[in-house]
Amino acid sequence: MARIVMKFGGTSMAGTERIRRVARIVKRQQDAGHEVAVVVSAMAGETDRLVNFCREANPLYDPAEYDVVVASGEQVTSGLLAIALQALGAEARSWLGWQLPIRTVEAHAKARVETIDADALIAEMQKGVIAVIPGFQGVSHDGRITTLGRGGSDTSAVAVAAAVKADRCDIYTDVDGVYTTDPRIVAKARKLRHVTYEEMLELASVGAKVLQTRSVGLAMKEGVRVQVLSSFIEDDAPAADTIPGTMIVSDEELEGMDMERQLITGIAHDKNEAKITLTRVPDKPGAVANIFGPLAEAAINVDMIIQNVGRDKGETDVTFTVPAADLARSMDLLEAAKDQIGFNRIIPDTNVAKISVVGVGMKSHAGVAATMFKALADRGVNIVAISTSEIKVSVLIEEDYTELAVRVLHTAYGLDAVEA
Amino acid sequence: MARIVMKFGGTSMAGTERIRRVARIVKRQQDAGHEVAVVVSAMAGETDRLVNFCREANPLYDPAEYDVVVASGEQVTSGLLAIALQALGAEARSWLGWQLPIRTVEAHAKARVETIDADALIAEMQKGVIAVIPGFQGVSHDGRITTLGRGGSDTSAVAVAAAVKADRCDIYTDVDGVYTTDPRIVAKARKLRHVTYEEMLELASVGAKVLQTRSVGLAMKEGVRVQVLSSFIEDDAPAADTIPGTMIVSDEELEGMDMERQLITGIAHDKNEAKITLTRVPDKPGAVANIFGPLAEAAINVDMIIQNVGRDKGETDVTFTVPAADLARSMDLLEAAKDQIGFNRIIPDTNVAKISVVGVGMKSHAGVAATMFKALADRGVNIVAISTSEIKVSVLIEEDYTELAVRVLHTAYGLDAVEA
Repeated sequence: MARIVMKFGGTSMAGTERIRRVARIVKRQQDAGHEVAVVVSAMAGETDRLVNFCREANPLYDPAEYDVVVASGEQVTSGLLAIALQALGAEARSWLGWQLPIRTVEAHAKARVETIDADALIAEMQKGVIAVIPGFQGVSHDGRITTLGRGGSDTSAVAVAAAVKADRCDIYTDVDGVYTTDPRIVAKARKLRHVTYEEMLELASVGAKVLQTRSVGLAMKEGVRVQVLSSFIEDDAPAADTIPGTMIVSDEELEGMDMERQLITGIAHDKNEAKITLTRVPDKPGAVANIFGPLAEAAINVDMIIQNVGRDKGETDVTFTVPAADLARSMDLLEAAKDQIGFNRIIPDTNVAKISVVGVGMKSHAGVAATMFKALADRGVNIVAISTSEIKVSVLIEEDYTELAVRVLHTAYGLDAVEA
Repeated sequence: MARIVMKFGGTSMAGTERIRRVARIVKRQQDAGHEVAVVVSAMAGETDRLVNFCREANPLYDPAEYDVVVASGEQVTSGLLAIALQALGAEARSWLGWQLPIRTVEAHAKARVETIDADALIAEMQKGVIAVIPGFQGVSHDGRITTLGRGGSDTSAVAVAAAVKADRCDIYTDVDGVYTTDPRIVAKARKLRHVTYEEMLELASVGAKVLQTRSVGLAMKEGVRVQVLSSFIEDDAPAADTIPGTMIVSDEELEGMDMERQLITGIAHDKNEAKITLTRVPDKPGAVANIFGPLAEAAINVDMIIQNVGRDKGETDVTFTVPAADLARSMDLLEAAKDQIGFNRIIPDTNVAKISVVGVGMKSHAGVAATMFKALADRGVNIVAISTSEIKVSVLIEEDYTELAVRVLHTAYGLDAVEA
């Protein structure tokens, strides 16, 4: 007997037929003897519809009222799943964010979960009632509806799992796990049985869009074991415990498994980066602060930074990357600070991609970066910039080489699946 | 300065463009110096969509979860209207049923408002904040969402008006008031400036679908002055006080107006009646109780009853009407009780209509019924059954004669508008 929190995304909840399917998957877990809570997203497309309503009503909408509007999507699916579970003979009821309550800080449209009062929830789960909880929503200290930001239902699920001290948090998605890289690029990509929280954070934040990054960080902090698995399993498949998804665990748990570890766990790519070059910046103390100060104040995340040798003495070119979505705003901010920074020209470039190799294995092994640079150079892929962390090496390349680079590295690190 | 509760139905709230129009109408009231609260319906069609989801999830859905699902429609429009009001520079915020709270009895899907805690609401209204309240919803004593039954937003508006001691409750609908009869049948129907609560109850319950009957009953009990007026007024029309809708007031207030009263206020018709005849029922004490007992237990509303003389001694035919929607269920119940009742045959007939003349004026005037019977007889309209109350005379006729009967009576009681 285990206590399990299951989470289903918008694709799984799109329409009553799919909701009835989800109900059968959930019911099977209960039939297997488990205590079950379910966290649900809105029907696919519904949140977009509601967000558009808000924008049409006023482009500068009040986030507090936006939360009232958009939280309704998950309210609907939680009620419907409870109804569908009852139709299967299960005891089930919905608990909305304000009913549990899921208390959040009062930052509307981007709230953070503070506490979840789970006593009533646990008592009901122990009685065999399946708890259905809308993801994405909470309630502020002054009693108003809050939402956690887009994709927040993953975070809701992990937070509920932590609150009820669940043995596992199963995130059902439209992929069946985390792969060594994007299977649409590399046909021989392999599904990973396990990744660590840290690896998942790096993989998620650089483009493997399986789980919301925040939810992984919360799982790590709270020690929640998260499993990613497919919601497109057959109705008559065995209970989910036996279906191999990807389990996200701590470094320690993984080490205890005594498996042969790969040096590299996965290869990620991210085309949503933009490069900015400022030419002929005075090469003097404080110049860099003048550039990055305004961007930091505007909460624009600067990733890679390269300082080139300039053409003239006392001047240098500075190149760095920002999220492509922030490019226009970054340009405006830099133009506004032109006199203070003292650059000559500003050159934007969105034709770049970031390729990252990720793996806890590299903590104890040298030569990972060297392998990467050599493999790319051998195939004529030029590296524009490099950044590293303890478990990641990233390079910036020309966007057209993205797929080639991913395939080259997947092979170079021995990640290709053996043909069956 | 007045305190006004305004209510807008689903047609007025169908889409953000219309919601922005409603915002302008509301803002004009505030600009005219009034304290304003607004009660809103879901977008037209939305409640049907949500109800269908519930039915698809389980035809025997749990009313508590149904309430969670369907209450979301008004949650969305209340948030959107608050946003649209803010876009006009007004201060506005939504208060959901559980936030005020609007306490109801725990009868899910058909709850009744018990209390509304309006202190915070009044304080905010006095500060100039426009309160936007979703209609149709409340919260039970155990903290779950309840709804008031279809059309319940009118009742919500009247309940809020009573709670905040509003000077007036303005119900904006897709008609511009209450007419002497259905203008689609009688081109010369006149809009009434005033009707009494009692008249409105009779007109509403017999087919003038302007206001939910329950809301009129509540307004009468709480002494809320209700005005029915059109939401399809021009944006640049003067503030609503000056647009003549129909005001629903008490008998006393109407008498104080010192107007020349019509004998009859309006003519209503209702095609949603069905007639049932049971033949050869034993003519003995208790026979009628055997018939109507099972129907009463099933909450089926029997309206007109006629006991005909039977063909044989000791037997009689019994004819009565029920709502057409309850006909099949009524037939089943009567068949099941056939032995106990002891009838011969059961004859259903949906080809009937009820025509009613309504007016407080008839309290002090005799001859109203006689005028009705003569006018109908002169035009060959056969009367199947008759029922009367203090301010109403209803007749059951063959459905094909409905429009003829309404026109004949409208003229007979002098209600036709004079050509301009």
